[in-house]
Amino acid sequence: MENRKLSLGEMAAMVSGEVAGNEELIIEGLSSFEQAKEGEISFVAKVKEPVFGSLTRASALLVPMAVEEADIPVIRVRDPYLASAIIHNYFLESDFVVEGIHATVSIGTDCTIHENVSIRAHVAIGKNVTIGQRTLIHPGVVIGDNVTIGEGCVLRGNVTIEHECSLGNRVILHAGTVIGSDGFGYAANELGCHIKRPQVGTVVIGDDVEIGANCCIDRAAFGVTEIKSGSKLDNMVQVGHNVVMGENCIVVAQVGIAGSVTMGRNVVLGGQAGLSGHISLDDGVMVAARGGVHTNLEKGSVVGGAPAMPVKQWGKSSAIYAKLPEMRKEIRALKKEVQALKKNEE
Amino acid sequence: MENRKLSLGEMAAMVSGEVAGNEELIIEGLSSFEQAKEGEISFVAKVKEPVFGSLTRASALLVPMAVEEADIPVIRVRDPYLASAIIHNYFLESDFVVEGIHATVSIGTDCTIHENVSIRAHVAIGKNVTIGQRTLIHPGVVIGDNVTIGEGCVLRGNVTIEHECSLGNRVILHAGTVIGSDGFGYAANELGCHIKRPQVGTVVIGDDVEIGANCCIDRAAFGVTEIKSGSKLDNMVQVGHNVVMGENCIVVAQVGIAGSVTMGRNVVLGGQAGLSGHISLDDGVMVAARGGVHTNLEKGSVVGGAPAMPVKQWGKSSAIYAKLPEMRKEIRALKKEVQALKKNEE
Amino acid sequence: MENRKLSLGEMAAMVSGEVAGNEELIIEGLSSFEQAKEGEISFVAKVKEPVFGSLTRASALLVPMAVEEADIPVIRVRDPYLASAIIHNYFLESDFVVEGIHATVSIGTDCTIHENVSIRAHVAIGKNVTIGQRTLIHPGVVIGDNVTIGEGCVLRGNVTIEHECSLGNRVILHAGTVIGSDGFGYAANELGCHIKRPQVGTVVIGDDVEIGANCCIDRAAFGVTEIKSGSKLDNMVQVGHNVVMGENCIVVAQVGIAGSVTMGRNVVLGGQAGLSGHISLDDGVMVAARGGVHTNLEKGSVVGGAPAMPVKQWGKSSAIYAKLPEMRKEIRALKKEVQALKKNEE
Repeated sequence: MENRKLSLGEMAAMVSGEVAGNEELIIEGLSSFEQAKEGEISFVAKVKEPVFGSLTRASALLVPMAVEEADIPVIRVRDPYLASAIIHNYFLESDFVVEGIHATVSIGTDCTIHENVSIRAHVAIGKNVTIGQRTLIHPGVVIGDNVTIGEGCVLRGNVTIEHECSLGNRVILHAGTVIGSDGFGYAANELGCHIKRPQVGTVVIGDDVEIGANCCIDRAAFGVTEIKSGSKLDNMVQVGHNVVMGENCIVVAQVGIAGSVTMGRNVVLGGQAGLSGHISLDDGVMVAARGGVHTNLEKGSVVGGAPAMPVKQWGKSSAIYAKLPEMRKEIRALKKEVQALKKNEE
Repeated sequence: MENRKLSLGEMAAMVSGEVAGNEELIIEGLSSFEQAKEGEISFVAKVKEPVFGSLTRASALLVPMAVEEADIPVIRVRDPYLASAIIHNYFLESDFVVEGIHATVSIGTDCTIHENVSIRAHVAIGKNVTIGQRTLIHPGVVIGDNVTIGEGCVLRGNVTIEHECSLGNRVILHAGTVIGSDGFGYAANELGCHIKRPQVGTVVIGDDVEIGANCCIDRAAFGVTEIKSGSKLDNMVQVGHNVVMGENCIVVAQVGIAGSVTMGRNVVLGGQAGLSGHISLDDGVMVAARGGVHTNLEKGSVVGGAPAMPVKQWGKSSAIYAKLPEMRKEIRALKKEVQALKKNEE
Repeated sequence: MENRKLSLGEMAAMVSGEVAGNEELIIEGLSSFEQAKEGEISFVAKVKEPVFGSLTRASALLVPMAVEEADIPVIRVRDPYLASAIIHNYFLESDFVVEGIHATVSIGTDCTIHENVSIRAHVAIGKNVTIGQRTLIHPGVVIGDNVTIGEGCVLRGNVTIEHECSLGNRVILHAGTVIGSDGFGYAANELGCHIKRPQVGTVVIGDDVEIGANCCIDRAAFGVTEIKSGSKLDNMVQVGHNVVMGENCIVVAQVGIAGSVTMGRNVVLGGQAGLSGHISLDDGVMVAARGGVHTNLEKGSVVGGAPAMPVKQWGKSSAIYAKLPEMRKEIRALKKEVQALKKNEE
């Protein structure tokens, strides 16, 4: 798109790949194997077998190193997913369009908004807000007082950012997401009434963080809730107060992270997983979908199940779960046999 | 309401029922058994016993075929739930009120908006958007560029529809729902940083689809995410990129459907269920609440548990779960007894 | 903040505590143990050991009764969490700032809005809406026809309140939450199409209720969905149609409550728990995180697991889950041994 073009040779240089075929071939876009058109490149992720150009209309393919034969031009790369992401992003890159600030936007006093921004209809901006250049704010976004938003951010429709929170650069927030809602903290009195514990902290989001739609990131009770640079959250993720999420974490949809959890770098949480409060997950921990973690986990742990256990053990245990009725029968049969043996003995 | 009226005879014709009592009796509304007033009809869903009018103020009742005795007028029908829905909808039906477009609505260039629409305050509409007649758009809705919305749709408050997505006719989207958020796709580079895989596909929603509040339907990476006609989604449902959901599915609240899942017609997913990516559920599959499905499921499968298994097996296994400590003791006792027997043998 | 000040003696009177140290000492704020500054008070929740002022910059501490020694001024209280909440709220209390109604707010006919309110930009208010004094409505909120909102409420950004619903006094709704979305009710016809059952009831929310961000509270099919006074809901909680939640309940994030559930007072639901429809949980029931409840629960029950069982039993069973493969081996070994014994017997 945007008429960007690359030769196979140029592409190969971008992704540390090797061209097999015409290095001069000009490519104008990237699409999926099924949908690519002539003039576009596509990719196959995991095959080893020969690759047949007759199965796609793409003019070239990114393929794994292991592919030896192909009857259309290919670029062999270590990771075709990664290579296709890099090249696709290149094709889609375009200059930031400065739309300015829509006439309907409401802006509080003492704001510092860069002139090269696009702020669309019905956005509400509080007092003393800072917004960096090349940031795009979709309609219906609500920004509280004293919020700081970096450069190159994208806030999609109906996002809410509460007072005092801050976003780094190139942060993407999908529609409906809430940053800085109050943490969930009460103390019960003698009558069983719950007295709200004020949530006076904030949320600090690092650079290059992407947060899906309809997520909630609670502000800290005191101090900060932190999502560090490069972390990516899917839709409907709940992050409790005072959580510290390290760099480059991956959090799949509908995960719930209770208050005061600490996560290292490159932690991966599968869909619908849940973390209990006040635990710590070290760098590189992986939790399978629906995993429920109640304890600290050491560097590189890979766990599943609830309560979570090492993923291999979980695989075995959950396979046996379906056989519990059978096991129960076996135990009963054994009991009878043992009773019979004992009787005979007497 | 709206002064619509039906005689019992007319109603019976609408729902293929049989009147027992005065066919000429005029009814002006429908309500629940507890709340119905004189002049209204109500319903009882599953009883066989005689039905006593003294327990309700309703003037008539929709009852199952099996009800033989009743001391107030009744209409016997195959399914009183269905019949009451049909009749209730009849009473509530009213002409579409054309409010036009509120003065505060922001509209991009090249839009095709039918003159018989109601678009309320603070709605933001992008470029080249098409909106069909009798569509009602509540305040705060955000619609991206190149979106198509059919006839007779209702979009409730603060819904966001991202660029390029399309809705069929009579689609209902409840408040806060997001259509067309980016799918969750990244490729990690050598440094463990996650490179975004552009999500350039769209979402296509068929006719008569209803989607609950605060749901997220992700746009496809390439191609389309599709919710086919007649499917009904409850609140907070997550639908990943490239999912294809067949006709007339029922998806209960807080379900998560990972990317590239294919569902046939009339699939039913219970609350908080989860489907792993790239699997296929054939027509009529039913997954119990909280079920976690990791494999393809054949037509008509009824499963529960995580990992999901046939629902009967799951029922047995989960009943035994609570008895695991007892089973463990039994095994230990058996061990001792067998050891004793072996000793005696020597 | 706001220059409010209290002496230790005054504070002790507020929280039924005993001062050890200078009762005249003036305190100007409250913060966490780590972040408190000179002139502020902090708290320690559960220690018995001596408390060392050198570990915090706070000028005084709220401590449990059991703390005997301390080298800085302390107030001994039954529950330092509760005491700190009470005192922190005192310091943060400030007069309601009447901002009035922002010029961009859209208001329907026949509304009764108290003059002492703050209604911010791009709020949309339907017809015949009542809003009490000292209520603060953040930008982007959508309020349907015939809604009643009490005094001292706070509605944060992009909240949606559907027609006919009502809020008591001092209700807090966090951003993105939806009150009064349609319940999920359909009846399938002979063709497998789902006919919508009209949802003509409402939602009634009591005094002092707080509901987190991106929650959904469905309106009743007939009658009311009710959240009684003092109940507190975390983020992304789903409450189905016709649920009645008693006073002072605590519902942690991502819980799903199916339709027509009845809950007593002071029920506690842990994160990601789920309740099946039409069940009843009596006063004081506690459900552990991720618990799945399918049956009625008596007063004071404490359950966990899915299907839920008494929490102690669940603890034992879930501990054994990881040992299922081992148990299976033991059963097999026993089988062999018993076979051998039987052979020898012959």
